Order: sequence, then structure tokens, then C-alpha cells
Amino acid sequence: MNLILIDERELAGNSVQLEDRRAEHIVKVLRSDVGETVRVGIVNGAVGCGTVLKIKKKYPFSVQLALVFPDDVQVSTPPIDLILALPRPIMLRRILSQSAALGVGRIFLINARRVEKSFWEATSLEPESIRENLLAGLEQAVDTRLPEVTTHNRFKPFIEDVFPLMSKQYSIKVLGHPGGETRLDQVIDPGYKRVALAIGPEGGWIDYEVEKFCEQGFINCTVGRRILKVDTAVIAIHARISALLERDLM
Amino acid sequence: MNLILIDERELAGNSVQLEDRRAEHIVKVLRSDVGETVRVGIVNGAVGCGTVLKIKKKYPFSVQLALVFPDDVQVSTPPIDLILALPRPIMLRRILSQSAALGVGRIFLINARRVEKSFWEATSLEPESIRENLLAGLEQAVDTRLPEVTTHNRFKPFIEDVFPLMSKQYSIKVLGHPGGETRLDQVIDPGYKRVALAIGPEGGWIDYEVEKFCEQGFINCTVGRRILKVDTAVIAIHARISALLERDLM
Repeated sequence: MNLILIDERELAGNSVQLEDRRAEHIVKVLRSDVGETVRVGIVNGAVGCGTVLKIKKKYPFSVQLALVFPDDVQVSTPPIDLILALPRPIMLRRILSQSAALGVGRIFLINARRVEKSFWEATSLEPESIRENLLAGLEQAVDTRLPEVTTHNRFKPFIEDVFPLMSKQYSIKVLGHPGGETRLDQVIDPGYKRVALAIGPEGGWIDYEVEKFCEQGFINCTVGRRILKVDTAVIAIHARISALLERDLM
Repeated sequence: MNLILIDERELAGNSVQLEDRRAEHIVKVLRSDVGETVRVGIVNGAVGCGTVLKIKKKYPFSVQLALVFPDDVQVSTPPIDLILALPRPIMLRRILSQSAALGVGRIFLINARRVEKSFWEATSLEPESIRENLLAGLEQAVDTRLPEVTTHNRFKPFIEDVFPLMSKQYSIKVLGHPGGETRLDQVIDPGYKRVALAIGPEGGWIDYEVEKFCEQGFINCTVGRRILKVDTAVIAIHARISALLERDLM
């Protein structure tokens, strides 16, 4: 936890009272004392400074912080949106955290032929669980912007009705699917504002799904002949796209 | 499992008898019958074709395969070697699989100040466990070349005595550490044959360790301001380096 993230609704004026794992982290890992400061952030808001006003170092832990934030706050949306065939629960949790850490704008969790039906019943899909895993990623990466996550448990309505409404905002739409022949550096320019990246389930998209994505303008791209697991592919392709987008920016 | 991996020592002439999870995979996932073929590979050797001679579809599963391999086999060593501060056991297992899937030549698991001592006692460090996790990655990625893994439980002898003997083979040595200011694309050329990538423990390398790496010619590189977990960083930096090395090759 490299950032103590606080929801705006938790604020009492410019202080906050923490009594959960964040308080425990301040006590046990940061070992802060009264008067010392910790790095704090407001979800979807600023990163600032929290000064310890009170601290209870024995269980149940509690910490009261006085907060100071910069006036001028710009929270930018990462340029990559992720369209992900719903993975198995343990992998979903990890991908949510890792995606939030790497930075994504939106995550669309969608159905596909090879998504097991039981995955849609998992507790990891409950809003609190999704939020918890996203926050863990933000706390790690020192970011405050929470990715927006939506679920779409029918493939066809998503690709035919939902996606076309958003399609125009993307400079490019990338389909990560074994067998793609286009290299990412052939199609991604540094000037691109937003990128949609669709990654299939274990076993891949079926031909029908690939066709539907292609009808929407997705380009089937390759990152080499190796077949990667979904969690590895999400990070590896995200990293490659980010590198290409940043070429002239850094 | 996209490839049935077989150790040379298991061969009986040009057939093999499988009775473990590989047999179970052929029975339950591939649902093969006598006369049908599966994709097989020899560890550190060729990828070829296995024809089912006999199959027992009830537990305990067993499958006998007749094997055919191409004559001309070239097993290439991936260009990236990984120097990794020993991570916690659950993360080590995943990183081993994911690294093998992405392709690495060697993995040096080394000590660092912020590596917990108990990690060195973990069963995940036993050779059979390491091999099992590496094979899982190769089976996923359809590769046969097993990364070489060595452990170095003292930092100073590794960086002062072991590493210098290998240092010359690397075109570049990259240190992944928060605070680096050099962009990877400023220092990695497509012509580079081998890259050493060193990634620290949770909490990072300490200053002394960073100094020691720099004495050996490592360059502290950045992939942006986000602080990533070790498992995320390994994949993301590997992907970015791979993309830069492949620029003119694909």
C-alpha cells in the first residue's frame, strides 16, 4: 500500500477517521506517530498529505488524519480500455488489481462462448469485491482514478448494441487473439487518444466472436507466437501498447 | 496445456507411456481417440506429433503415444535473463510460470535486504517445484526450452563474484527500480543479443543494492511513475523490452 485511499464520503471536513486495514497499515507497516505524515489520496481525486492527529496502536487500530490537498487537481483517464471475456474468479481479482495498477479507463467484462457459466455467479463480481480489488491496485500504483467496470453477460447485445455507441471514441481497436498477424507497432501511433483492447477467455474467442469484433473495426494483433494465459496477456499487451503510445510523450 | 511436454528420459524408442496429468489432459480435455494426434514436445528439444496408440479413459488414465519429430531442430534461447529478488512463494510460482511462458533464458533468484528470510525455506524453491512451474508455462506457450534457474542466497557474492563472470554477454543491463529516469527505448536497440533485467523485492532494492548494480553497469530504467508489484513489473518490463528487441526482427 503506497497510498492511503479515502472515499470522499468518509471525509469529516478536512479530517478522516480510519479504523480498517488502512489504520492497520499506518500502525504496523508505516509505524507512524502523532505529527508524522502519510501519503493520502481521494478516490477519483487528488493525492495529498495526511498528518496523524490521533493513533491507537493496539487492536482495534484507529488513526485520525488531518488532510491537505493541492488546489489544482487533474485526474486523467488512462488511454486504454479493456474488454475482457469474464475470467475465472481468482484470475478476475488479480486482473482487476493489476489493471488498476497499470492504468485502464474502463473495463468491460463480457460473456463469450468459452466463458464458464458459473463465473457469472462468483462473489468476485459483486460491486464491493470489484471495488476492493481495483482499490488495491490503485494503492499499489499511487493512483486515485478508479476504473469504471461494467458487466455484460450476453455477447451479442454487447458487440451489436453497446459497443457501437462507444466505438467512435477509439483511435484504434485491438483484438488480442492467437493467430493475429498485425504487429502492434504497425497500427498504434503515439498521437492516439484512446485504445480499446479486447482479450478473450482461456481457449480463445470462437470464430463468430472474432468476426463480430472485426465487423466493429477491431484489428487482430499478434505479440508473437506464444500462447499466453489471460492474466499474462493483459499485462504484456497493455505494456506494449503503453510503450507505443508514450513514444513521443515522455 | 497447449503442448504435451515429455522428458527425453521418458522415451522408449519413439513412443512414450503417460500416466499423469498429461494423460488426464489427453483424455478429459482433448478427448482423443486411438489414431488421433496431439501436439507434443521434448523438454529442450523439438515440437512434433504424437499419435495415440492406446488410451485408458477411466481413472487411472493412461495414454501411449507414437512420436514423430522433425529432423532439423533449433531450440533458441530467449534474449532476456531475469535477476529477481526472491519473491514470496505464491508469487514465485506464478512468476516462474509466466516467465517461462513469455520466454526467458536464465532466472537468477537472489537475496536482497527486503527479501524475508522465510522465503528461502519455501517448498516452492525445491528443484521439482521450480521445474513444475516452469513446465506449466512452457505447456501454455507451446515452447520446449526450459529456463535455467539458479538460487543465490547472499547478495554480495552474487553481485561481486557471480555476475561479473557473465556480465560481458549482455548488450545491456536494466535495473527496474522506482525512480529510474532512463526510458527503455532510449537504451535498447533491436540488434541487442542479450538483456539482463533485475527486478527488486516488494519495497524495492535498498540504496546499497542499487549502487552495486550500477557498479556492474546496470542502468536504472523507468516504465512510468506507477509503482508496480513484482509480478506485474516482471511481465510489463519483459513485454516492453521484447517489443524493443523485435522492432526490426518481425
